[in-house]
Amino acid sequence: MDLNYRFRDPALARLALTHRSIGKPNNERLEFLGDALLGAIIAEMLYEAHPKASEGELSRLRAQLVNGQALAVVARELELGEGLQLGPGELKSGGFRRESILADAFEATIAAVYLDGGFDACRDTVRGLFAERIAALRRSSKDAKTRLQEWLQAKGLPLPQYELLASHGEDHAKTFDVSCAITEPMAFVAEAHGGNRRAAEQDAAELVLSQLLEQQRSS
Amino acid sequence: MDLNYRFRDPALARLALTHRSIGKPNNERLEFLGDALLGAIIAEMLYEAHPKASEGELSRLRAQLVNGQALAVVARELELGEGLQLGPGELKSGGFRRESILADAFEATIAAVYLDGGFDACRDTVRGLFAERIAALRRSSKDAKTRLQEWLQAKGLPLPQYELLASHGEDHAKTFDVSCAITEPMAFVAEAHGGNRRAAEQDAAELVLSQLLEQQRSS
Repeated sequence: MDLNYRFRDPALARLALTHRSIGKPNNERLEFLGDALLGAIIAEMLYEAHPKASEGELSRLRAQLVNGQALAVVARELELGEGLQLGPGELKSGGFRRESILADAFEATIAAVYLDGGFDACRDTVRGLFAERIAALRRSSKDAKTRLQEWLQAKGLPLPQYELLASHGEDHAKTFDVSCAITEPMAFVAEAHGGNRRAAEQDAAELVLSQLLEQQRSS
Repeated sequence: MDLNYRFRDPALARLALTHRSIGKPNNERLEFLGDALLGAIIAEMLYEAHPKASEGELSRLRAQLVNGQALAVVARELELGEGLQLGPGELKSGGFRRESILADAFEATIAAVYLDGGFDACRDTVRGLFAERIAALRRSSKDAKTRLQEWLQAKGLPLPQYELLASHGEDHAKTFDVSCAITEPMAFVAEAHGGNRRAAEQDAAELVLSQLLEQQRSS
């Protein structure tokens, strides 16, 4: 796998691979920018690929693609590890820490492409790297409430509580506000709105699930 | 204040202002895309405007600009409320709910500009709307540990716990891993790494603070 991009400014490409353990300047600011660009470009790809998916479902699909583990896989395919600049304390680090360094370097590289070649070059690069991954993603056949329940059960955590907050409108066109609350691994409540209670609960469960996956990613 | 963009496809502009209480299609999918685009464009603006800011500081500045309340202010300046399509249940809703509907409509409008006119048009629009806001943002003179402490104290919550997790490297070039943990309003731990313990604690506090602001925004 190849980035398929040739840098005009090779120093920018190097900076993207410079871990903070080297000192400053390092790739942390690029990582901030790259994370945001990647999120936007993947959002567009999913928006196009899944014209029927709800906002919650699009968020969940994106979280599957841009979590640290998934990005470390891309970074390895691009062999970014070979160019990494690490300080002495980090050289031998393995496992999770190494994964997260690779994922960060990948995000920083995306920002470097943007700054070097502009949005279209960056978008082409991301599309090249993620097109097949997106095609391979199936919208899960299990519904969000089931997936949330299974996620919590697998960790031995309490099940979510659903609550009907309000309903609006005439009988023939009623809509429902519901909440889905969890207490562990963190206290979190999501609210959703829908044409029937079950659909609203699914959307609320989806929001909680994407929050959990996001949390898992950033912790 | 004006969007300064003329839509080729006015249906897209209308869709961006169509709340889910109308049924489908509505602006929820556009909001997903717009949120991501706005995040990326503001990230770039902050990256340029604050060449010395750390990743944590950039995140915090962005959270100040793109939280629901701040976006509702922009939406009001653009008078998006006048074009909002709302179902009967939502017509009279006021207060926080109304704010969040406006913020969502603004994000959806950003996506509509992107789909209608491409990235450069979208970026110009966002830059036009946020340039002065970004210039007016001061990098807070208070450090992150102080701001986090004040935020928690204002809500009567327990103070954060800082812990030294590890130090690496030779004495003359030691680096430190620290964590900053809170238990309320949610259990959250952030880790950071730095050339001295205090700097690493500041970065960890910054991460916790941006998580709290993000949480506040989405709840």
